[in-house]
Amino acid sequence: MTTTPFGRDEYERRVDATKERMREAGIETLFVTDPANMNYLTGYDGWSFYVHQGVVVSLEHDQPVWIGREMDANGAKATVWIDHEHIRSYSDDHVQSPVGKHPMDYVATVLEEMGRERTTIGVEMDAYYYTARSHERLERKLPDATFTDATLLVNEVRIVKSERELEYIDQAVDISEAAMQAGLDALAPGVPESTVAADIYHTLIDGVERVGGDYPAIVPLMPSGEHTGTPHLTWSDDPFEAGDPVIIELSGCRHRYHAPLARTAVLGEPSEEMQRVAGVVVEGLNAALEVAEPGVTCEAVELAWRETIAEHGIEKESRIGYSMGCGYPPDWGEHTASLRPGDETVLEENMTFHMIPGIWFDEFGVEISEPFRVTSTGAERFSSFPQQLFSV
Amino acid sequence: MTTTPFGRDEYERRVDATKERMREAGIETLFVTDPANMNYLTGYDGWSFYVHQGVVVSLEHDQPVWIGREMDANGAKATVWIDHEHIRSYSDDHVQSPVGKHPMDYVATVLEEMGRERTTIGVEMDAYYYTARSHERLERKLPDATFTDATLLVNEVRIVKSERELEYIDQAVDISEAAMQAGLDALAPGVPESTVAADIYHTLIDGVERVGGDYPAIVPLMPSGEHTGTPHLTWSDDPFEAGDPVIIELSGCRHRYHAPLARTAVLGEPSEEMQRVAGVVVEGLNAALEVAEPGVTCEAVELAWRETIAEHGIEKESRIGYSMGCGYPPDWGEHTASLRPGDETVLEENMTFHMIPGIWFDEFGVEISEPFRVTSTGAERFSSFPQQLFSV
Repeated sequence: MTTTPFGRDEYERRVDATKERMREAGIETLFVTDPANMNYLTGYDGWSFYVHQGVVVSLEHDQPVWIGREMDANGAKATVWIDHEHIRSYSDDHVQSPVGKHPMDYVATVLEEMGRERTTIGVEMDAYYYTARSHERLERKLPDATFTDATLLVNEVRIVKSERELEYIDQAVDISEAAMQAGLDALAPGVPESTVAADIYHTLIDGVERVGGDYPAIVPLMPSGEHTGTPHLTWSDDPFEAGDPVIIELSGCRHRYHAPLARTAVLGEPSEEMQRVAGVVVEGLNAALEVAEPGVTCEAVELAWRETIAEHGIEKESRIGYSMGCGYPPDWGEHTASLRPGDETVLEENMTFHMIPGIWFDEFGVEISEPFRVTSTGAERFSSFPQQLFSV
Repeated sequence: MTTTPFGRDEYERRVDATKERMREAGIETLFVTDPANMNYLTGYDGWSFYVHQGVVVSLEHDQPVWIGREMDANGAKATVWIDHEHIRSYSDDHVQSPVGKHPMDYVATVLEEMGRERTTIGVEMDAYYYTARSHERLERKLPDATFTDATLLVNEVRIVKSERELEYIDQAVDISEAAMQAGLDALAPGVPESTVAADIYHTLIDGVERVGGDYPAIVPLMPSGEHTGTPHLTWSDDPFEAGDPVIIELSGCRHRYHAPLARTAVLGEPSEEMQRVAGVVVEGLNAALEVAEPGVTCEAVELAWRETIAEHGIEKESRIGYSMGCGYPPDWGEHTASLRPGDETVLEENMTFHMIPGIWFDEFGVEISEPFRVTSTGAERFSSFPQQLFSV
């Protein structure tokens, strides 16, 4: 039996919106490999993105076509809304093949059978899992097709969320808050980092009452001590030490929808300087949330942050947030809008962002973040987790 | 302070072995993006592979060069053995850039500075995270270079393990066994799949006495009921039901080294047919382990399995195992040798494999696996977990 987290009408609207963008871009056939885009269009949900796979959307065909490995075709049947005749799979000797076969050879065959070999084919040139070899093979096998870049085409459709998507993000944030609390509760001098990570993970996956958790697209990150200036290092089994600052960044996940959350804690009493910096982060964060509303650009939101912290003599160079939602490893970001200088994306109702401003020095860093939704009247936080520096 | 899981001499041996293969292949400069290869050559370990990054090995330079995002350079300093002058980073406006910059523009600049712009450059055409756009950009920016495919060049160096690597796999298997037991203990009718996954995850990350766990490159997979025929679906929050068959596949991880393990359980009494099939899997598994020794080919190992199960009237088409070790999401496999027809890789001492034969029918499937090491006298199992069908 197939169960999908969204109704068939919602998937059909997504496909229609994708086709509309294809027409605007002069694309007759679209081949997407980003697992989040595959899920968005078909419902497919499996840990099979370590082999080549994809979804075809054709202007001449009603339904998308799922293409993957033979042993994953049953997983597709169990998770997609499309009719099973549109599930196509390649034999196992295409996988890391010792005999020179490549899954894209099979994809080309399917595209030919669909009569797409002379069309303009959009491919996600910079998406995860669309390798240089994949593209080379597809071009070689379909010499009469015209290839064009469609990297963010589906991502752009994903940027505005439906009510059901917002519900899943709401469920994910409940999990995020519970996991953050589990992490804060576990933090103590002498406790290995891996034990704190284990407690966080348990809550992320077990979920909250009546809502089970899914694996997040990024593992919980918790740089501590001198490593708070290294935001993407993962845990070790070294014990935490009294006085350590710790940044916890994590996300609950529900039906692949995320609600990331970051907070900073100190094992003991924070220094005055750290408290001051945390105050600046909170002030800047809220100044940016204050200006976020439909019609405002992403860079204007970032500017409110930057101007606020500048009043305190602080400068920061990287982006402070990004559009978020459905995702698979290695990222829960959507790769479309970012809150930073130069991004002129205009906010619309039901866009969702993770605003994660941070200030890092050599000795410590402070991050305090908010996932938020753009409503008709302004930014609405998904979470009510206290905006503060925690002392544990 | 930098701490690496291996001594500097071991990293230098790896780089030397890589250079040797480069010379044999006529490659003067190598650019690797597979996070496992980056780790293997430099020690770098961070969840930053969601942005473009890589490591350069040049025949004219002693040490590799790490290239990544500016905010990850500190993470590199904290984890690599190479001198910090060889850590190079690009500014944040290259990340999902609204202004048309691409990280490979920066990589090209570094290669020019190193005097590599007219050399033969090996790139991992089919590696994770080396996108079609990455390759296109690099070719365009370095028009005088000759690009050649080096997809598995470093992976081939990785296939034979050192004593220290084997120690980490030994530690990982302790974690795998504890997590498998945690999963079997948690399985019961009425318990949500997500709760069992949470208990497994807690053990995977918390680890075992004095050995903390790391995140595995693949999440625990536990298809159940009719879904045992869909090996790569992940959990839901549906409760397990009495009579369900469940396959648990998981791996502990230590310093990024894996020891995957799969077992099959039934919530209640297994049917006679299922017990019969489990017996065939165990018999075939051990027949294959029996023939694995230095000098034997991978396909000969698979043949022993296939002939054994054929005596019981069973055929199976996909590969039954693969070389394993250091890995990052989405895969702990090394993508070199596979145990399957057509793979003529000759086994050598200290190669490590995950042999994971399975037999799937429409109603149920049985998988029972063994991670093993090739010793001078034959296959040695890393795990002593019982080879049986579990009734819980």
